[in-house]
Amino acid sequence: MSAVLDLTLDLIRRRSVTPDDAGCQAMLGERLGRVGFKVEHLRFGEVDNLWATHGDGGPLLVFLGHTDVVPTGPEADWRSPPFEPEIRDGLLYGRGAADMKGSVAAMAVALEQFVLAHPGHKGRVGFLMTSDEEGPTNLDGVRRVAAHFRETCERIDWCVVGEPSSKSRLGDLIRVGRRGSLSGTLDVHGVQGHVAYPEKAKNPIHALAPALAELTAERWDEGNADFPPTSFQVSNIHAGTGATNVIPGALQALINFRFSTASRADDLRARVHAVLDRHGVDYDLAWNLSGEPFLSLSGGVLRSTVVQVCRDLCGVEPEQSTGGGTSDGRFIAPLGAEVVELGPVNATIHKVDECVAVADLEKLPALYYAICERLLA
Amino acid sequence: MSAVLDLTLDLIRRRSVTPDDAGCQAMLGERLGRVGFKVEHLRFGEVDNLWATHGDGGPLLVFLGHTDVVPTGPEADWRSPPFEPEIRDGLLYGRGAADMKGSVAAMAVALEQFVLAHPGHKGRVGFLMTSDEEGPTNLDGVRRVAAHFRETCERIDWCVVGEPSSKSRLGDLIRVGRRGSLSGTLDVHGVQGHVAYPEKAKNPIHALAPALAELTAERWDEGNADFPPTSFQVSNIHAGTGATNVIPGALQALINFRFSTASRADDLRARVHAVLDRHGVDYDLAWNLSGEPFLSLSGGVLRSTVVQVCRDLCGVEPEQSTGGGTSDGRFIAPLGAEVVELGPVNATIHKVDECVAVADLEKLPALYYAICERLLA
Ligand SMILES: [Zn+2]
Ligand SMILES: [Zn+2]
Repeated sequence: MSAVLDLTLDLIRRRSVTPDDAGCQAMLGERLGRVGFKVEHLRFGEVDNLWATHGDGGPLLVFLGHTDVVPTGPEADWRSPPFEPEIRDGLLYGRGAADMKGSVAAMAVALEQFVLAHPGHKGRVGFLMTSDEEGPTNLDGVRRVAAHFRETCERIDWCVVGEPSSKSRLGDLIRVGRRGSLSGTLDVHGVQGHVAYPEKAKNPIHALAPALAELTAERWDEGNADFPPTSFQVSNIHAGTGATNVIPGALQALINFRFSTASRADDLRARVHAVLDRHGVDYDLAWNLSGEPFLSLSGGVLRSTVVQVCRDLCGVEPEQSTGGGTSDGRFIAPLGAEVVELGPVNATIHKVDECVAVADLEKLPALYYAICERLLA
Repeated sequence: MSAVLDLTLDLIRRRSVTPDDAGCQAMLGERLGRVGFKVEHLRFGEVDNLWATHGDGGPLLVFLGHTDVVPTGPEADWRSPPFEPEIRDGLLYGRGAADMKGSVAAMAVALEQFVLAHPGHKGRVGFLMTSDEEGPTNLDGVRRVAAHFRETCERIDWCVVGEPSSKSRLGDLIRVGRRGSLSGTLDVHGVQGHVAYPEKAKNPIHALAPALAELTAERWDEGNADFPPTSFQVSNIHAGTGATNVIPGALQALINFRFSTASRADDLRARVHAVLDRHGVDYDLAWNLSGEPFLSLSGGVLRSTVVQVCRDLCGVEPEQSTGGGTSDGRFIAPLGAEVVELGPVNATIHKVDECVAVADLEKLPALYYAICERLLA
């Protein structure tokens, strides 16, 4: 059995549902320590983070991943138990097989091989793992590690994120950036009353309606060469207690922007307030900026290298995308790093019977190895 | 102690929270039976209804009321226990004192006195009680009795409803009609998805927003001499499971019209559908017409009589209103009856420390008696 497959199986057997690392990082740290990495365990709150580096200065290339996985749902819905990896028809099944214990194993194996083959490599290589990527807040994961890096003046030049980026075959899509995510909790204040006496009440649904129509119809920007237009979604709206004859006294809505580099978070916030104010809505609005957009420029060293590696080793021209949700790359990019995401096919992630093609898994270390070699050998 | 006060105390002591009559109607029926009324107990489902009549044909004057009361809320919030009536400073306290056990007692006492004083009166007098006026559906109360009357060809000419109509002194406001109430349950269908991939989802909040803005801004009619304009309220709106990154797949809203005789329910329904359809909303909408509007015309015999009784016995010019919520009069009016509502001051109804002025309570039988006498003596 190959080293990467063996390691992936070992990782999948650990029930590391967010934020529980279940010993993955201790094992990975020990492995990398054995080949000369300096290993730090950064535990914040309930979250384990692993930071291992090799080399003595110069540009720093980091491989970023997470050891936590999303819950399995009812285990009986799986054809084989989610934490007992099983290979059927060339596919390795198990929770985390694609997102992203396969990539984690591949990155670790690639780094082992790289430092053994190039003990005096240029620059530094780093391996950063968190056990809080899949959780709702990510407060104590890479967000917190990045704050720690700011304090310790750790500067990252390039960051390869192992998130499963590929669509239908390995290397057919890489992420060269991500949109920002800006959320808001909107509380509209009204005055409760009886539907028969609307003049004594103030219906927050009615107060919000024209502003809501305007906000949902707004075109926020046109996007740009790298990003699709900014999108706005109201994910929740709630008012009323179920009583049919009571005008509710309050409404709450949750809103979210996925925004491109064509807009700034401050401007989006101001435009929402302007619409609400113009319609005379009585409201409070609490914002949460969970990530600024980031982008590896098209001439970027890392981006060019990853594209060439996909061409050379996978024989495909990778789509260079900025689509999809957020990733932990959003916390590393503001440190000044160029961030690119490359990982296996994502068709089954977060689903029952999550799997990765064994052939892709076997090939993945070579991709990460090639990135190291082309940048630092 | 006067007969009406004595009877009111007896009724308040019975914990007749909807739909429990708690023996009120049996006691009332027995009293009226003793003075020659024909008494029927009409029990439908869990609801008691009492129907007592006196006389042999000709025009029928009905006094309509309910023996049920709304819940008390925490009894500790009351200064005296809600089902232990107590007189303090000329006010009788207890759940139902104003809504409407005081009126029920006054109507019963007035009818006793009337048939004893006028054993051979013209026409017929009737006394109709339900124990399901305050409940959410009223299916087995007066709505059901009215259906029964249709089957038995019982025709009602005039109906006095004892609901507490007065504002600050007895007789200062009578209700000469009520708006209709038309409710709808609107289900908007979307497609659930992730906020990062709005192009793969269909957000029902966004789909509804422009239609909602239009519906809440619409002026449905201008009202008329007797009614204020029709009002439209969205009492509830719900979409989303709380997750901030999920576009919801469905939205539900509850809507309600309080509509005047200037609009027809069919037209209001059609106009709502037209707005939703024009905006391309994918929806289902289930309507419930809980009451058509009704109105006693300004030259009506009953209306003129009640107005004159207020002038003569209370020394006030009563406001002739069609405001407020619905009442059981909505079920009697479609039988062809002229319906007028006259009862005590409603300031404390449905509240803690509900009360009625003892002086008003003592005067109320004389008002109902005078109506009987002027119409049927
Ligand atoms: Zn992941
Ligand atoms: Zn009532």
